[in-house]
Amino acid sequence: MGSSTDDTVAEGAVMPDWRTLEPMELTPILSASLDAFYETGFHGTSVREIARRVGVTVPALYYHHENKEGLLIALLELSTSDVLSRAHAADEDGGGDPVRRLSNVIEAIVLRMTLRARLAALEGESRYLSPENRQRYRAVRKGIEKLVREIVEEGTASGSFDVDDPAETTRALLGMCQSIPRWYHAEGTLSPQAVAKKYVDIALKTVGADAR
Amino acid sequence: MGSSTDDTVAEGAVMPDWRTLEPMELTPILSASLDAFYETGFHGTSVREIARRVGVTVPALYYHHENKEGLLIALLELSTSDVLSRAHAADEDGGGDPVRRLSNVIEAIVLRMTLRARLAALEGESRYLSPENRQRYRAVRKGIEKLVREIVEEGTASGSFDVDDPAETTRALLGMCQSIPRWYHAEGTLSPQAVAKKYVDIALKTVGADAR
Repeated sequence: MGSSTDDTVAEGAVMPDWRTLEPMELTPILSASLDAFYETGFHGTSVREIARRVGVTVPALYYHHENKEGLLIALLELSTSDVLSRAHAADEDGGGDPVRRLSNVIEAIVLRMTLRARLAALEGESRYLSPENRQRYRAVRKGIEKLVREIVEEGTASGSFDVDDPAETTRALLGMCQSIPRWYHAEGTLSPQAVAKKYVDIALKTVGADAR
Repeated sequence: MGSSTDDTVAEGAVMPDWRTLEPMELTPILSASLDAFYETGFHGTSVREIARRVGVTVPALYYHHENKEGLLIALLELSTSDVLSRAHAADEDGGGDPVRRLSNVIEAIVLRMTLRARLAALEGESRYLSPENRQRYRAVRKGIEKLVREIVEEGTASGSFDVDDPAETTRALLGMCQSIPRWYHAEGTLSPQAVAKKYVDIALKTVGADAR
């Protein structure tokens, strides 16, 4: 059952310390793209504006990235693989117990939603991707859904959880986490760790883990 | 306790049939603005483009709306007041029972998230509003949060629910609903009514209503 055999994690890969989120290392071009996309959206940002922010010429920028969509997909993939590898590390740390596994994974996801809220918010721009890239990106995102659903299903099968519809419950759990960037910077007064703790409690209640 | 005395619902106001969502009646200008904002985002849309879609001149458009931001705020306010009045009607229909009240309100919100997914998705653009308009819009949105929190608090006080943190649980419940537009059109195979039913079950579990 362990996710260590999951093909989304390379065997022998170094697991990040999933509770520690240093600022994400981005190239100057991707960093400027993130700023610009966050401030004015994908369609509201020109390649010229990104080049201006970085201090390079437009051709120099095209040397590294095919086009504006290439910048967005690069950011989305970096961001999603980061959260996916952290979530897998958190899951492994759960030692096979569904309650600890789900708690850890929700904690990892919420830490990322609060500490990297701008990157997380960029997911909303994925609807502007071309059909092909959207499909590719969706496949990466499905990794998180697959991991959480697996835990919910195993916990339900073992009697740790009480869930009627694991697939929909998984989507609901991820949805409550995904909405955090919308309010956290504007209204959040709690530390990322405190928010994570609260969401772990709510998630355990949602899967009926406290009613055992 | 009844929300009938809530000042967000005018006394004697005609309550909409909250389970029936006819296509929202928008003026041609707002309808074209919604299309354009949805397709290319707020910053990716020009007033000229909206005027072109409607088939009017730019000055004619400015006759009705102050500027591009005025179009976005008009859409956001229409959309949010619509869901707020439906949620209040759904709440009233609950006859004072916390379980029925919460079930109805979640149903009303999910129906809106699925049947009016594009309008609902527009909320993501609210971060581009000027500080003043963002404040005004947030006040309207708070109405929904206030209503749900009131139900969660009353249900907890009366022993119908088992919730540790009503405020955060309310945000989590709304968050799981708000994320629906992100996947519903791309992957949804269930009817809006079926999705609503599932989310009602998940919400009741989240507030510990089934563990009574």
